[in-house]
Amino acid sequence: MPNADHAQRITDTVHRYLRLVADGSADDIADLYAEDATVEDPVGGEIHIGRRAIHGFYSAVDNVQRECELVTLRVCGNEAAFHFRLTVALPSQGAEHRMVIEPIDVMVFDDEGKVAAMKAYWSPADVRQL
Amino acid sequence: MPNADHAQRITDTVHRYLRLVADGSADDIADLYAEDATVEDPVGGEIHIGRRAIHGFYSAVDNVQRECELVTLRVCGNEAAFHFRLTVALPSQGAEHRMVIEPIDVMVFDDEGKVAAMKAYWSPADVRQL
Repeated sequence: MPNADHAQRITDTVHRYLRLVADGSADDIADLYAEDATVEDPVGGEIHIGRRAIHGFYSAVDNVQRECELVTLRVCGNEAAFHFRLTVALPSQGAEHRMVIEPIDVMVFDDEGKVAAMKAYWSPADVRQL
Repeated sequence: MPNADHAQRITDTVHRYLRLVADGSADDIADLYAEDATVEDPVGGEIHIGRRAIHGFYSAVDNVQRECELVTLRVCGNEAAFHFRLTVALPSQGAEHRMVIEPIDVMVFDDEGKVAAMKAYWSPADVRQL
């Protein structure tokens, strides 16, 4: 596979991931991952192993209003690193209560273009209340 | 070690790394790394294994005029991810010829606070000529 095509495919998947984090279901998001993928979000926390566990992880945000915006993206080899801005409204705390998190995520891709591993770098200290 | 102290130590080391990348020697920079550390810069390229190889890698920029600026930093567990801006002037091409690279770096730290692994996410497509 030519390098440029490979990098473009990874770029497309990152953009699709961010669209789905904003506006997709756990089913849609889990489908981007390989069967035996791992998710560590945040880094230092629990590692979710396998697509079923990953589906469970994303299910937690299914009922949360979200907006998502890419800040900057780097694609190298089979990996991507990107900084993005996630704004969420917590229904339990009223529509007025919104918070912003700006993680730096790293993804490793397999030969089929599926996400084999994701690590999200953020901590409670990075969360801002709006 | 309390978490806040640990995160502060990692934060301090990242700031020191960027100061040294701007204005330090290969000796100074290599000293931040563990004896058996690895450096992959850029990701997808050669992996430099061990402090001696890492010293050789940083020696390449000893005679290059550099400026370095942190854009954003995340510290989680034993790791850090940060976006920074590196401006270099290539002496072979005259002082007027400058270029800017904005990598996203990921570092893993050992229990002594040394860098055990560094990966730098950037590609030639991310280099801008000034």
